[in-house]
Amino acid sequence: MNTSSPRIGIIGTGAIGGYYGLMLARAGFDVHFLLRSEFDAVSANGIRVESAVHGTLQMPVQAYADVADMPPCDWLLVGAKTTSNAELAPLIAKAAASDCKVVLLQNGLGVEESLRPLLPAHLHLLGGLCFICVNREAPGVVRHQSLGAVNLGYHSGPAADAAARQHVVEAGAELFRAAGIDSQAMSNLAQARWQKLVWNVPYNGLSVLLRASTTPLMADAQSRELIQALMAEVVEGARSCGHELPQGYAEHLFAVTEKMPDYWPSMYHDFAQQRPLELAAIYAEPLAQARAAGCSLPRIEALYQALGFIDRHNLQR
Amino acid sequence: MNTSSPRIGIIGTGAIGGYYGLMLARAGFDVHFLLRSEFDAVSANGIRVESAVHGTLQMPVQAYADVADMPPCDWLLVGAKTTSNAELAPLIAKAAASDCKVVLLQNGLGVEESLRPLLPAHLHLLGGLCFICVNREAPGVVRHQSLGAVNLGYHSGPAADAAARQHVVEAGAELFRAAGIDSQAMSNLAQARWQKLVWNVPYNGLSVLLRASTTPLMADAQSRELIQALMAEVVEGARSCGHELPQGYAEHLFAVTEKMPDYWPSMYHDFAQQRPLELAAIYAEPLAQARAAGCSLPRIEALYQALGFIDRHNLQR
Repeated sequence: MNTSSPRIGIIGTGAIGGYYGLMLARAGFDVHFLLRSEFDAVSANGIRVESAVHGTLQMPVQAYADVADMPPCDWLLVGAKTTSNAELAPLIAKAAASDCKVVLLQNGLGVEESLRPLLPAHLHLLGGLCFICVNREAPGVVRHQSLGAVNLGYHSGPAADAAARQHVVEAGAELFRAAGIDSQAMSNLAQARWQKLVWNVPYNGLSVLLRASTTPLMADAQSRELIQALMAEVVEGARSCGHELPQGYAEHLFAVTEKMPDYWPSMYHDFAQQRPLELAAIYAEPLAQARAAGCSLPRIEALYQALGFIDRHNLQR
Repeated sequence: MNTSSPRIGIIGTGAIGGYYGLMLARAGFDVHFLLRSEFDAVSANGIRVESAVHGTLQMPVQAYADVADMPPCDWLLVGAKTTSNAELAPLIAKAAASDCKVVLLQNGLGVEESLRPLLPAHLHLLGGLCFICVNREAPGVVRHQSLGAVNLGYHSGPAADAAARQHVVEAGAELFRAAGIDSQAMSNLAQARWQKLVWNVPYNGLSVLLRASTTPLMADAQSRELIQALMAEVVEGARSCGHELPQGYAEHLFAVTEKMPDYWPSMYHDFAQQRPLELAAIYAEPLAQARAAGCSLPRIEALYQALGFIDRHNLQR
């Protein structure tokens, strides 16, 4: 890797930040990790990815407990939970070089819209959708089960026109591809976020509601019906908001999940560790956008109401 | 009580059979209890009702382990779970006097329709809807928290016309009233069963889905919304099947539940004790009847699918 390569910062080094940060560092990029609870472990042992695809990868990394110690970054990848975006905004602003591209590697709708007003206007803001099965095993230790693609789309910032936006997004996709990660530029971030919800809405929520990973969820006739009905409502919600998803997309994700190794979605890990669930981005915002377009999504709404109850009681335990 | 009083048999002495059977025996009726797992405890100690309304009632009762030992009964009250009706049918037939009135003290739809073909045609079949908070604490021990009314309706049998049916139903209601239990004759059993579902569909299911009793369910804004939305779907389902429920009935039950002592619905007890849940009568049959009338009830369907998954995994534990 040549010395003019961009400097990359990773904000929020859970499973997503740890995996992509380590893959980029391993490819020779200059990667800097801003850490909170994991700082001691990562300073001492680096990051370890136990991957069913790449084998076990472990290497020391440049780790920081204080954003003031970080050099200004050209790219900032945010892999934190959407629930902590508001408190991360000042750290993102401090870690950013003047033309920094901030990429939210997060699920759900409205995440860029919520963060945008909290960021300086000169920063580019992008969304990144990760098609990957990873989870955090321990501080600095990530388990990677399968997949890995990251698709990027431009949200807002100083890019003057479609060509300039396309240039920024392609440069980001090129970074990931240089690290051996499949990555595509997406022309319509809003549509891509709806599309990702076709997976997240059923599997994340049902993993918590039914305390079940993908294999048992895909093995039971009634949970299969429920997954398909929830997927159909996401497709309907997207359509009501002007996003016609590709024909057969829900069926495709259903079939992909059937072939995946058994997987506990991230929301289940949040539940099991009594962290707040990402209900605003994955449920409340899609429901609100569909409702504003005159579209009712009753099963998703019922699931959201049940998860809201579970989340509040889980946090009070 | 005079000696010409009818002979009453209780089939399935859980909370419902134990409570009403004891109340009738206490009023001087000739009551006979057919028992299975509870026979030893009840033979030794009688039945004990720990009531928040009546204080603690305990008395020896006429208990049988074998239906062949029971005298023929004029009334048979069936308080077993709907899930065991098919296997109880031959016992009911054996315990019945020639003009016996069989009363199903059970929730849900289709319970009389399923049992009817398994019973001799000369038996009267009635449905009874119990508005009561009771649960079985131990073999032969019933905890009664509040309420207690039983409303009766005629389903099928030898009664020749509406007047004859009315006569049978009034006689049943009179029995209960003679034991100090509020009881009304209902002219339309099918509608009354739909009406009872307005409570059972949300509270029974959500108690299992959310592992929560009525007080926390009524204390959370999102579970309240979900309860109200499920109630509205039951009202809509009833309407699609030709039963216009009384105006404001759902709101009435919601308000009653808010004032009730904290209560774990019977489905939660079944779940906690790894017994089969009464999903066919309370969910599948109402959904099927509404669907046949062209009415979709998406929240109830989603709840049913989730409960089906939970039930199967609960029984396999």
